Amino acid sequence: MDLRQWLIPQDKEFFDLFEEMVGTVVEAANALVELMNDYTDLGAKSQHMKELEHEGDRITHAIYEGLNRTFITPLEPEEISRLATAMDDVIDCIEGTVQQLHNYGIPATDSPMRQFSKLIQLSATEMQTAVKGIRSMKDVQSIEARCIELNRLENVADEVLGHALTELFRGSDPLTIIKLKDVYENLEQATDRCEDVANVLSDIVIRHS
Amino acid sequence: MDLRQWLIPQDKEFFDLFEEMVGTVVEAANALVELMNDYTDLGAKSQHMKELEHEGDRITHAIYEGLNRTFITPLEPEEISRLATAMDDVIDCIEGTVQQLHNYGIPATDSPMRQFSKLIQLSATEMQTAVKGIRSMKDVQSIEARCIELNRLENVADEVLGHALTELFRGSDPLTIIKLKDVYENLEQATDRCEDVANVLSDIVIRHS
Amino acid sequence: MDLRQWLIPQDKEFFDLFEEMVGTVVEAANALVELMNDYTDLGAKSQHMKELEHEGDRITHAIYEGLNRTFITPLEPEEISRLATAMDDVIDCIEGTVQQLHNYGIPATDSPMRQFSKLIQLSATEMQTAVKGIRSMKDVQSIEARCIELNRLENVADEVLGHALTELFRGSDPLTIIKLKDVYENLEQATDRCEDVANVLSDIVIRHS
Repeated sequence: MDLRQWLIPQDKEFFDLFEEMVGTVVEAANALVELMNDYTDLGAKSQHMKELEHEGDRITHAIYEGLNRTFITPLEPEEISRLATAMDDVIDCIEGTVQQLHNYGIPATDSPMRQFSKLIQLSATEMQTAVKGIRSMKDVQSIEARCIELNRLENVADEVLGHALTELFRGSDPLTIIKLKDVYENLEQATDRCEDVANVLSDIVIRHS
Repeated sequence: MDLRQWLIPQDKEFFDLFEEMVGTVVEAANALVELMNDYTDLGAKSQHMKELEHEGDRITHAIYEGLNRTFITPLEPEEISRLATAMDDVIDCIEGTVQQLHNYGIPATDSPMRQFSKLIQLSATEMQTAVKGIRSMKDVQSIEARCIELNRLENVADEVLGHALTELFRGSDPLTIIKLKDVYENLEQATDRCEDVANVLSDIVIRHS
Repeated sequence: MDLRQWLIPQDKEFFDLFEEMVGTVVEAANALVELMNDYTDLGAKSQHMKELEHEGDRITHAIYEGLNRTFITPLEPEEISRLATAMDDVIDCIEGTVQQLHNYGIPATDSPMRQFSKLIQLSATEMQTAVKGIRSMKDVQSIEARCIELNRLENVADEVLGHALTELFRGSDPLTIIKLKDVYENLEQATDRCEDVANVLSDIVIRHS
């Protein structure tokens, strides 16, 4: 077994871990949509989300440990750590919002929350396609198309936020406004974090294609 | 035509795009000051700001595409993408605040808003001088002086925010406080984003001078 | 005196400056805990905090100037500037919260504030051990253990924030809620900034061990 053969599994490992990570992002986004559509058993559902967050942390640590052990990596160490951290931030943001719904005692979900969640789910799916694409780097244009779509979805979320806040301030109960404003802004930030992942992927594509 | 001649236009292209970008930052900052001083036709003015934001996105994409095509760049690919993204973030932040004034139905501008806008305008002008300077890298000290000034302006904005919030909380209408606090904080964040540009420029100067 | 000897002092200088910087972070964290436990003379104490913030700025500038003068550095220039900026951000965040207590006219500290401050102080101490460790890079595992602990402390702060906000929203005065929510979130963010330092340190360890 020569050195190259010995190294290939290591190279592959990162892509396996990235796919595991983006799979967890998709799972968290799906769980969020589900929770928004069926707002019951919040305790159990927020517990499940916390487990997904720990799963994200576990994969991130595995990626960092991989960086310590591997001598030759297909990507720059910094790119690997940036991509892992960016995907982990998406999960943290989704989980944080679910905790917030719980902590704030929000009694029901509403139309903006469901719209944001759908946008987060769409973003997660695009992200998954793009992340799978960097393994072979064969179809760079498709990865870039996914990144542009992630940017577009973030812009849509931004508009949803504008309308939701305008509507919210028509109400008069300050505590409700403070709480819902926070929830809306955090959901919108989840799409910002997805856009951050797109930016890291764009940088990787630029360097390696 | 030798390789070097063929490459020079490519090298130049990035600096042209950076100057176009910082020109858009200056234009957005000027439009913000104008809107603060003449708070009429908010619909048309926020539409104009949205166009400037799209212009920023267009230039950012052109810079990213340039990275895909060019083999030798005067700067590291990562520096180029960081600088483009940082300037784009300034425009996004200015545009976001104007949308907010519109969405929140803020009836009039006030002294803190005008002070922030003036600081953003001053920051944009300093930024423009610094960005123009990285083309030749002849006067590194002048670029660094602009970066220090951008840091100083951000500190001033921070103090304006402190005073504005203290004053704001002397009022008693929670909805007004929530809305204006958001507007002030976003205007202050525009100067943070200008400081981010200064940090990227400092890093570039350190590497290339 | 050969070139190598001439360079060694320069290499050392960065580590001296990093230790000076992390010493200032620890000092700011200690001053925060002290202020939380003895909430008197807020004017004088916030003035002292402002001086620590200026001290942080001074060291950051010294590090940047060092980058301009030194040709061979033990770390990448970008790593050095990232580490300096990340530590400076911790101090800025602590100082900003103290200004906020002052500006908002918060009449007394409370249990969540004291818990956050203690977590920030613990984080600063862990950070100091880790930063001292990168000079020799002899005990990489100990640095990594500190980074993991900084992540853990940030998770604890996150939970403290969740409980504190739940409790806060049980009250009814919107202005108090707006103010305290801001203070709690900023204190929690100080632990986020400590985690950022941990991430930079992890990246440095990965590259250089």
